[in-house]
Amino acid sequence: MRTPAQNAELALLLEVCGTPKPGNVDRHRDLEDLRFEHFLAGAVGAQDGLRMAGHGGAVGAAFERAVSGMAAQRGGNTQFGALLLLVPLVRAAREDLSQPVVEGVVEETTVADAAAFYRAFDHVDVFVDDPPDDLEALDVRRGADAIPTLEERGVTLYDVMDGSVPGDDVAREWIRGFERSFRAAESIATGEGPLPGRAAETFLELLAERPDTLVVKRHGETVAKEVTERAADLRDRAAFETDREAIEEFANELVDRGVNPGTTADVTAAGLFIALERDVVEL
Amino acid sequence: MRTPAQNAELALLLEVCGTPKPGNVDRHRDLEDLRFEHFLAGAVGAQDGLRMAGHGGAVGAAFERAVSGMAAQRGGNTQFGALLLLVPLVRAAREDLSQPVVEGVVEETTVADAAAFYRAFDHVDVFVDDPPDDLEALDVRRGADAIPTLEERGVTLYDVMDGSVPGDDVAREWIRGFERSFRAAESIATGEGPLPGRAAETFLELLAERPDTLVVKRHGETVAKEVTERAADLRDRAAFETDREAIEEFANELVDRGVNPGTTADVTAAGLFIALERDVVEL
Repeated sequence: MRTPAQNAELALLLEVCGTPKPGNVDRHRDLEDLRFEHFLAGAVGAQDGLRMAGHGGAVGAAFERAVSGMAAQRGGNTQFGALLLLVPLVRAAREDLSQPVVEGVVEETTVADAAAFYRAFDHVDVFVDDPPDDLEALDVRRGADAIPTLEERGVTLYDVMDGSVPGDDVAREWIRGFERSFRAAESIATGEGPLPGRAAETFLELLAERPDTLVVKRHGETVAKEVTERAADLRDRAAFETDREAIEEFANELVDRGVNPGTTADVTAAGLFIALERDVVEL
Repeated sequence: MRTPAQNAELALLLEVCGTPKPGNVDRHRDLEDLRFEHFLAGAVGAQDGLRMAGHGGAVGAAFERAVSGMAAQRGGNTQFGALLLLVPLVRAAREDLSQPVVEGVVEETTVADAAAFYRAFDHVDVFVDDPPDDLEALDVRRGADAIPTLEERGVTLYDVMDGSVPGDDVAREWIRGFERSFRAAESIATGEGPLPGRAAETFLELLAERPDTLVVKRHGETVAKEVTERAADLRDRAAFETDREAIEEFANELVDRGVNPGTTADVTAAGLFIALERDVVEL
């Protein structure tokens, strides 16, 4: 029997192994400086933090530890967003891996959790937008320097996530009871064939549903919408069954353009974890 | 900084990711019932046993725990032989990862270590040969049932390995101071390009050097020698640089014939661990 922390690590590994996952590193594609093996090392490195969450450690501290271990490879940020979803899910799995329990876990986060979250940005470069003027003092790029302001204003980690919606669909999961993550798990469970293939198909469904917020931040809304429309077209004509070549071409094109829908991959990893942990898939 | 146990798990992941690795599961190839994701799950499952070794636990007990965790996936035996090399290496790394230290670790194994090794066979189907008549009572396929005989005869785990040479090149590493494993690490360290590619190239060198003992057991000496001669030909003409297509074809052919040089993959994983742990490669 795998522990929740082990299932979370395995979810990270299965996520990167699923192919084709348009625009992202997958079993058949590397980016120039970010390769498959960096994701393997990132997943292994995250395990201490995931185990902390599995043992009931605070969400913020467990997340910071997971990120610092994940970042101990030369590829840069591989799984920051995925860990931000997995840590509260692993914590919830101690009790019961359900939407109400994980909602409770994130709602109970504290100012100390927020401080640890900000410290996590000191371990790795994460791509983020400029904050609005009134939140400049809480720009995550300040890292630990923002902690006095957090404490002064009594901002919890849940508050930080709440302030990042709309615009960040990892944060949105925190605020919406991990609704898309649980739905992704169902899609993976009802899929056919080997697990990484089901994850890739679920990735395309998620991408077809909403513009990827990392793509919006990096390339703007027009590009993000175009990517979503093309994913929706592929989904609508069941391209995984009828025209796999079209998905492979789309995947290559996005890699060539440097457009990587990382937030969608994060939600896919969360869905894989939920499916593994609920034992609704075989591996 | 990764711990020795984490580096061992990462070595398992990098080994399966290296491609082309003729006859074995790799980043581009699955076997019919044994797929890439089974190796991912096997590596994650092994982590508790590897951590036991890293904390100074007995070699036999740590190995049994690693195997039982590794076997908690549906693909069957993925990394039994690799773990039999990694566990004493991780244990040695507590002190110093050198040939003399790991020789000391294996020479000091006890009857209790041998008993745990036999119990490991109850967790997973491992392909083994018939033993000679006088060793029938110590056939590993008896699993825990052989333990009274082990105890009666005072057989240590080192003795078991000694009795498996020649014929099993994982056992041979135990008896010969992990000589090929350390040499594999050097080859990986002096290679060029991304780590999984260096591991694949080292795999081919090892395969060219000696007939793979798993192939001998399953398909006989003639097939094993043919495989080694073809690997030597590819090595001699530096096919990784000059004719990669020929290696890819060889890889596909061996997969089609069901010939998988698993022992060579085990030594490659050990070499990856040593290279990671000595910090002579970047990842």
